[in-house]
Amino acid sequence: MDERAIGIWDSGLGGLTVVRAMQARLPGERILYFGDTARVPYGTKGAETVRRFARQNSAFLLEKGVKLMVVACNTASAVALDDLAGRLPVPVVGVIAPGARAAAAATASGIVGVIGTPATIQSGAYAGALQAARGGLSVESRACPLFVPLVEEGWLDHPATRLIAGEYLAPLAASGVDTLVLGCTHYPLLAPLLAEIMGEGVRLVDSAAETAREVARRLAADGLLAPEGAAGGLECFVSDLPLRFRQVGELFLGRRIDAIQLVDFQTKEKV
Amino acid sequence: MDERAIGIWDSGLGGLTVVRAMQARLPGERILYFGDTARVPYGTKGAETVRRFARQNSAFLLEKGVKLMVVACNTASAVALDDLAGRLPVPVVGVIAPGARAAAAATASGIVGVIGTPATIQSGAYAGALQAARGGLSVESRACPLFVPLVEEGWLDHPATRLIAGEYLAPLAASGVDTLVLGCTHYPLLAPLLAEIMGEGVRLVDSAAETAREVARRLAADGLLAPEGAAGGLECFVSDLPLRFRQVGELFLGRRIDAIQLVDFQTKEKV
Repeated sequence: MDERAIGIWDSGLGGLTVVRAMQARLPGERILYFGDTARVPYGTKGAETVRRFARQNSAFLLEKGVKLMVVACNTASAVALDDLAGRLPVPVVGVIAPGARAAAAATASGIVGVIGTPATIQSGAYAGALQAARGGLSVESRACPLFVPLVEEGWLDHPATRLIAGEYLAPLAASGVDTLVLGCTHYPLLAPLLAEIMGEGVRLVDSAAETAREVARRLAADGLLAPEGAAGGLECFVSDLPLRFRQVGELFLGRRIDAIQLVDFQTKEKV
Repeated sequence: MDERAIGIWDSGLGGLTVVRAMQARLPGERILYFGDTARVPYGTKGAETVRRFARQNSAFLLEKGVKLMVVACNTASAVALDDLAGRLPVPVVGVIAPGARAAAAATASGIVGVIGTPATIQSGAYAGALQAARGGLSVESRACPLFVPLVEEGWLDHPATRLIAGEYLAPLAASGVDTLVLGCTHYPLLAPLLAEIMGEGVRLVDSAAETAREVARRLAADGLLAPEGAAGGLECFVSDLPLRFRQVGELFLGRRIDAIQLVDFQTKEKV
């Protein structure tokens, strides 16, 4: 039993989809969310930079006394999770292994598709996690760099989104995948369109729900669950209040965002 | 006469189009360029955050002893230029006033279109600068948030880009503008497509050339020009080496990038 909060961070607001899944599964847990909205996106940046950001974001939440750290960003999970796990004094859960395990369990054809940011795909982290979950799987990967800006623009079913998604997914649809991992927290908002393009018989795996399940398992195994009947709650921190913050944030969380605090932990001014 | 370098920075690599124009006009000047590739883009972020970034970027180049500071980022020029001008001990040149002056001089219909990032358009800076340059102008503005990721993807003439540009520009094309300001350093790469959509008779104004002219004028007026026959040169600094750095950077600069240094001036690590 442990009354401390769970820490969870993402490059921006997409990780609120994981918060949503955690709140559904673990309503008694207090959650501290940090969105690095001043430096978003991570998916087109270099691995060393993303690892540096990952250490800073984790340190911010760690100082608030969290009992477990969730890296809700696929890009950071892909390139920074091992580095973090070796440094942090609390358990660290990423979004890649849970999604990969779910996909490995779901596929009948043995051919799994993965879509994500350029950094995530280039890292090969999903291919590795899928192989670890079930040897002999065939993995077809595709970077989809325009999906994040399209989602943030709110163009979830726009003709341009349809055209771009069709082009990105064509090689996957042709390769016989029966399971598609949505390897970025923004992508579940495109799920209806992606499902239509991939066609019937292709299952989409959203790592948010799988990650919430993994968090629950890990808390239980380590004796870290909140006391029964605890009230839970969510506190949000961001490094920038972007122009469309509330609109985009509530799209991801699926309900009103109440408490939100602007923080600047990473910089000092010189002029 | 002044042998010190000119400092120029942008949120990312787009400002290299301004470097290119400066090198053409002022071949004897040494130029220090900083691209804040770790925190790019600025155009969807809040004004207060952009002003903070602007102070940090300027301080970095100021410590290297530059004689004049060019803010090559439209978003930062829109929201941070007054703040910077009051703080820096050297002249500061932005990209908005030069572009606005050129557009005000060019329009015959008196109706000028402006496209830019959400932050630039929301600031109203171009509308203000156009009015200041020539009272009574009518200004039609449009934020085009997907243009930056499309350019960075290299989709300069892709059907999706065509579709999106058609939608963004339709209200401008219908409003009788005869001059369109490309209010973002990424947009000149889309110029052929934008010209085609706007139709003949609409002049596109790229602030890179106008800004280089303003820099030359300001250096001359303040007695800061490099000695005649000086060799000039370019040194580049970035806060991240993004995955497609060389490809995108050389697209903007129009030739090979030689010296490039990775810097981390804004952060300290805690774990």
